[in-house]
Amino acid sequence: MPTYTAPIRDFQFLIDHYLDLDTHADIPGFSEARALAPALLEESAKLCEEVLQPLNRIGDMQGLKLEHGRVITPEGFKQAYQTYIDGGWPTLTWPTEFGGQDMPEFLNMPMLEMVCSANLSFGLTPGLTHGAISLLLKHAARDLQETYLPNMISGKWSGVMCLTEPTAGTDLGLVKTKAEPQADGSYSISGTKIFISSGDQDMSENIIHLVLARLPDAPSGTKGISLFLCPKFMVPGGEQNAFSVGSIEHKMGIHASPTCVMNYDGAKGWLVGEANRGLSAMFTMMNAARLYVGVQGLGVAEAAYQNALSYARDRLQGRALTGAAHPQKPADPITVHPDVRRMLYTMRAFTEGGRALVMETALMADIAHRHPDSAAREAADDWVQLITPIMKSYLTDGGFETASTAMQCFGGYGYIEEYGAAQYLRDARIAMIYEGTNGIQAMDLVGRKLPFETGRYASRFFHPLDAFIGAHAGDAAMAEFIKPLSKHAKVLQQATMWIGAHGAVNPNDAGAGAVEYLRCFALVVFAFIWAKQAKLALALHDQDPAFYDAKLTTARFYFDKILPGTFSLLASITAGSKSTMAGEL
Amino acid sequence: MPTYTAPIRDFQFLIDHYLDLDTHADIPGFSEARALAPALLEESAKLCEEVLQPLNRIGDMQGLKLEHGRVITPEGFKQAYQTYIDGGWPTLTWPTEFGGQDMPEFLNMPMLEMVCSANLSFGLTPGLTHGAISLLLKHAARDLQETYLPNMISGKWSGVMCLTEPTAGTDLGLVKTKAEPQADGSYSISGTKIFISSGDQDMSENIIHLVLARLPDAPSGTKGISLFLCPKFMVPGGEQNAFSVGSIEHKMGIHASPTCVMNYDGAKGWLVGEANRGLSAMFTMMNAARLYVGVQGLGVAEAAYQNALSYARDRLQGRALTGAAHPQKPADPITVHPDVRRMLYTMRAFTEGGRALVMETALMADIAHRHPDSAAREAADDWVQLITPIMKSYLTDGGFETASTAMQCFGGYGYIEEYGAAQYLRDARIAMIYEGTNGIQAMDLVGRKLPFETGRYASRFFHPLDAFIGAHAGDAAMAEFIKPLSKHAKVLQQATMWIGAHGAVNPNDAGAGAVEYLRCFALVVFAFIWAKQAKLALALHDQDPAFYDAKLTTARFYFDKILPGTFSLLASITAGSKSTMAGEL
Repeated sequence: MPTYTAPIRDFQFLIDHYLDLDTHADIPGFSEARALAPALLEESAKLCEEVLQPLNRIGDMQGLKLEHGRVITPEGFKQAYQTYIDGGWPTLTWPTEFGGQDMPEFLNMPMLEMVCSANLSFGLTPGLTHGAISLLLKHAARDLQETYLPNMISGKWSGVMCLTEPTAGTDLGLVKTKAEPQADGSYSISGTKIFISSGDQDMSENIIHLVLARLPDAPSGTKGISLFLCPKFMVPGGEQNAFSVGSIEHKMGIHASPTCVMNYDGAKGWLVGEANRGLSAMFTMMNAARLYVGVQGLGVAEAAYQNALSYARDRLQGRALTGAAHPQKPADPITVHPDVRRMLYTMRAFTEGGRALVMETALMADIAHRHPDSAAREAADDWVQLITPIMKSYLTDGGFETASTAMQCFGGYGYIEEYGAAQYLRDARIAMIYEGTNGIQAMDLVGRKLPFETGRYASRFFHPLDAFIGAHAGDAAMAEFIKPLSKHAKVLQQATMWIGAHGAVNPNDAGAGAVEYLRCFALVVFAFIWAKQAKLALALHDQDPAFYDAKLTTARFYFDKILPGTFSLLASITAGSKSTMAGEL
Repeated sequence: MPTYTAPIRDFQFLIDHYLDLDTHADIPGFSEARALAPALLEESAKLCEEVLQPLNRIGDMQGLKLEHGRVITPEGFKQAYQTYIDGGWPTLTWPTEFGGQDMPEFLNMPMLEMVCSANLSFGLTPGLTHGAISLLLKHAARDLQETYLPNMISGKWSGVMCLTEPTAGTDLGLVKTKAEPQADGSYSISGTKIFISSGDQDMSENIIHLVLARLPDAPSGTKGISLFLCPKFMVPGGEQNAFSVGSIEHKMGIHASPTCVMNYDGAKGWLVGEANRGLSAMFTMMNAARLYVGVQGLGVAEAAYQNALSYARDRLQGRALTGAAHPQKPADPITVHPDVRRMLYTMRAFTEGGRALVMETALMADIAHRHPDSAAREAADDWVQLITPIMKSYLTDGGFETASTAMQCFGGYGYIEEYGAAQYLRDARIAMIYEGTNGIQAMDLVGRKLPFETGRYASRFFHPLDAFIGAHAGDAAMAEFIKPLSKHAKVLQQATMWIGAHGAVNPNDAGAGAVEYLRCFALVVFAFIWAKQAKLALALHDQDPAFYDAKLTTARFYFDKILPGTFSLLASITAGSKSTMAGEL
């Protein structure tokens, strides 16, 4: 049976040192958050290790039932959800006026990662509610906010996003669901939505659907889509609204997450935000959702890695290439074999690098939200805009790759469901698809984020990177990291220039290399992160030699073995789109 | 529901042109095989498309039952197996004296690939029987051969390989199963084996187990392991032997393939080959088995690719970056998007390159077996030795990657089981693990195949490659392929020299880069294949412009986008093993 131990030590390192919170002590809530962190880390670890993780395989095996039109979650999920909301976990980051605790996001991220590690299927319901809340906070009228937000923030009610239709997935301009205005100011919603995560479940008392639909006079395409709030049970009153679950999908993974076909048969709804501006409202929520999906990839990767490591330490097969390491045992543990070590360090470089990226991005989002200075807010938001597609895509690709690598460490046992590696692999795969496929993320990066104000977003990454490289030019201890960082940053800059110059002439040149470009960018983002972690490890070494030695080794491994990926990516990118666009397919 | 159409056109191209059979017309059986090919391709396509493919999802959903100690295969499998053996398919390549048709392997490969595409789970039972037959042909005494081979070759009886034990997987030296000599010349076998594919099933009339075990006086380790033949039902007599199925594993994929825990409780067995030489007997079979596992990766990839392509052609989302391609439709088919095309061409470059590699390797195996000249036999066998780990590893990694890419083309539908992409992904994953994990293949390449007689095996690849490059030095039409082929061949040679030089001093340097080195080698093998296919496409173009244009475009895509992978791999390899071997894990 798979196990999970929350990486508290690493989170504490990131909060205490990596985030450099001392320089931000004046931002409202930051000092309080830092003071709260140790207790919160411990409490969320307890919840995830003791309540959610033991339900993960049960959820996978039992899956969901649809009985009399209601979704029944697996044994224990309802109680676990109650424990989760009793602990006040959903309220952490929301405004106090609606019952929140107004804490920064960086304090919330450890819990989010831990939940994804312990039980991804469980995590999706509160995760989607989180997105729905942020949307309503930003776009809904005051009376809708007052009616719905307090119970959504407490977790008593959940929120879901209803975008996709059978013929409208990536291309939401094709949405056909209709909204007819009613005399009482409400709307009557009719249509079918698919792939609605947590569209129904029995854990929360009410479920608030946010539905994209078209008004009768709406223009065609993306500019004619409006957003409506449809509660499952009317508020007040409690009568059931006119929508129902058509079916639950049979998915490869996240078996305990109900992916519903939803039928709206004249469901009562209220307009959120302006008419015909629903898609842009949805997209303000989407950025946060994409960051959260990145955390999902990271969370599953961490759990998969832990189990692979623990298996590899115990599994005795063969002897070290340089002679038996444990001659008294029948064989050496497989951690002596270079290829097994390669797999383990590859996973660790990903999870620890990814965790730092998530925490840094959360901090940037907090600065963008809370900093007293508007220029500082803008700079931080620019950074988040740039990193969002990279984080969504690279952390979910990496989540799946890590789950597959973890399976490989298990050998044949990895393919047997009881050992857990298979579930991590199956669960991780969805994150590369939903909230915008990873190909769409790459198009977002090259098509929207890069060209914005001739590189304003990108400069928010390159300037601090150049400054860091410059500041350590004479630092002998850091040279082993700064030299390759500088070299591969130049590779990324070459790729960036190529995409910019050629994409402007032929957009297919940007499109054909977009996925490779995003990956190249991510490799350099991780290199910057690992260089910063290495710097801290050198400085803080004596405080915790074992922890910081491991950081340094993993940093070195990353620079040796993973970062060189940029060379090939640059070559692929600059080959252009000619062969890609040629021929009939 | 997924569909499958056998790639007859591509096979016919390979047999008619790529294999260059005219130069081998004097080898016994080759001309007959070539004459038979069109009819055989058509018949095997019919079997796979009409009988095996429709059972693939049924097998996945129903899985297996263990009733009264017997494994019950899913609905229709037993009848399909009967159809398969009635068609004489298992007999194709075996000696006529035991009821075979003595045809070369290259004639058998198309059917093997098609079966893997149509129904991988089904294919494993005859696939393992194939391995057992080749082992018995080479190592068993004449009386055992006469008793067992005719019914195994006809397919009436199946054969299975029983190697792994709970504590002995990759490291078979740890095998504990015991064999006690009996007065009648037989042996009494006791122990537990795990991961026994097709260990029991209800499709064949008898099941012949080949079991690794230790004699009482055997030396410890790999030099004390012997091989025994244990029939499920005694021959003659038909009494049930003293072994039984302990349980069937619950696996992530290949649900219709029974992976059994087998308990031998004083089972009656006969020694195959010499005492204490069982492992080497098993390894002569293993090479063929590894090639076949490579074909599995390829077969699943082909099916996954076909379904992704057909979905992408029908799916309308968004518009081409350069303006609507089909303004009369609500949206363009997603095949207009460069990133979708990238995915489709990546898959095609893999499947068509992999197919050529499989056919070429089969031809080499045939030459090694049938050529009248011993030097030619040796040269061909050397090539097979070198390519075996590359083919097993690269085609199974690629099979899984292709299945994942195919899923991505489907977007959300890819994650829903009914569409089939998920099953291909789940099924494909096992091939990276069994018959020696892909890490073990890489160690085989750098640790055994490369150093053998100071590079004798490797020279069998590099010499023809250099000759091909040299012969086309002045060929303007081929320059676009020859230039990069030559450049990346040099990268591979650098990597080879580095591994040779450093691995000799520190074996961990070879071990830490082995997987990257194998991948680098495979990229150049594929480049050579694609250059040869491009050459044929240029020469034969007017005979079938659509087919050969597609070959040329795919070749160009491979050289543009995939082959540059060597640069990063070289950098990773030459970074050495220092960080990989450092630190506690």
